[in-house]
Amino acid sequence: MGEFTADESHPRYNSLLSRHKLEIAASKGMLADSAMIAHGRVEAFDYLLGEESSNNAIIATKNALAHLNAAKRPIITINGNTAALAGKELMQIAEALNCPIEINIFYRTEKRISAIIEHLEAIKTEHGITTKILGEKPDAKIPGLEGPRANCCHEGIFSSDVILVPLEDGDRCEALVKMGKTVIVVDLNPMSRSAKMASITIVDEISRVAKNMIDLIESDYKNEMDIDFVNKKNLQKSINIIAANYMS
Amino acid sequence: MGEFTADESHPRYNSLLSRHKLEIAASKGMLADSAMIAHGRVEAFDYLLGEESSNNAIIATKNALAHLNAAKRPIITINGNTAALAGKELMQIAEALNCPIEINIFYRTEKRISAIIEHLEAIKTEHGITTKILGEKPDAKIPGLEGPRANCCHEGIFSSDVILVPLEDGDRCEALVKMGKTVIVVDLNPMSRSAKMASITIVDEISRVAKNMIDLIESDYKNEMDIDFVNKKNLQKSINIIAANYMS
Repeated sequence: MGEFTADESHPRYNSLLSRHKLEIAASKGMLADSAMIAHGRVEAFDYLLGEESSNNAIIATKNALAHLNAAKRPIITINGNTAALAGKELMQIAEALNCPIEINIFYRTEKRISAIIEHLEAIKTEHGITTKILGEKPDAKIPGLEGPRANCCHEGIFSSDVILVPLEDGDRCEALVKMGKTVIVVDLNPMSRSAKMASITIVDEISRVAKNMIDLIESDYKNEMDIDFVNKKNLQKSINIIAANYMS
Repeated sequence: MGEFTADESHPRYNSLLSRHKLEIAASKGMLADSAMIAHGRVEAFDYLLGEESSNNAIIATKNALAHLNAAKRPIITINGNTAALAGKELMQIAEALNCPIEINIFYRTEKRISAIIEHLEAIKTEHGITTKILGEKPDAKIPGLEGPRANCCHEGIFSSDVILVPLEDGDRCEALVKMGKTVIVVDLNPMSRSAKMASITIVDEISRVAKNMIDLIESDYKNEMDIDFVNKKNLQKSINIIAANYMS
């Protein structure tokens, strides 16, 4: 693995940096076996979308942030891949929102949870972040789900009104929507079940989304909920981008 | 990892089986770090194409097989992922064509080459296959390329007139075409540089392609070179499938 030596001028710099971060995370035991395959799917869809935040992704991101801002109990959930790729940024957003984050992984093992917490605690110490990290001791269950992925924290996901879930699985997304929550999903596939099920889907890559949110938080931008936002229409715009890239 | 226990009736059976094969290959040291990411990209594009061999993929496969049949010195090249997913089938095709296979990996290390050879030799013994395996001792270089990926065998890739290269990188594909070879690429992304550079591009998943070729070889199908075949037109049909799936 070794040190990351690619130059920022390298045309694939961001892509190589993401892979490097995931390799480190894998070596720390933070990732499931399927994590690299999941990232390959991310790469493919990002390629199809032009590897940049589209206008409609920005619109969805702004609306998502407005909903998180207006929430009584917002929560940001993080899995192994997102902890590796945007752990610092997502915790900074949570800190700005004054909400906790919750670790929320599909293939739950205590070892992986511990590895992710250790990774995030180290980032907190290094960057002076105080965000509370939930997920180590789940004490509630998401209704309608079975097995370990139903587990969550009462103080976090269970009681939340607005939830940001990057790279969620379709079933859990549906179950969270059924609980009455506003579910914000980050998913590069605008046709996925999660993308279609969510209240707000940001079709964009998670580290770009996190940076965009931080830019919005730090700017003077007056962030209001977008009453004209229709998730299906926003998704269709991402679908159109992919189709246009293919037809050209 | 353990034994593979999924039932054939499982809707994701083929996908799970491929992942299982790759996990075994990874544990044997056959794969580069990026192999799982590459497979994730394969999964994403296969999803977009409907996870089946399209008519135009079959047309390209038939034409590819006809060119391999008519070749004076055909060669089938195999990397770590294809050895894991379709090693047996590709060696059976090589045996039917009476040609060797050559191991041809981008991130070449002697350890990985040895692991792949060991895997393929075990398959040969188990299934009574006699195909010759080249690639352990490269003694020639592909002109115009630098570094380990230029290495090849004089008896194999270097002297071949028709070459099947699954999942090739764009530069090497271009270099092989420049050598005057008929280059057959298997690539699920119809927009990739390899797909565009190749003489014949089969936009399909490698284990389906291998099975389709074996079916063709075993059938009475009279396999002739397709003089109407235009690779760009065939590629456009795959692009149309993806676009149509997205627009629907």
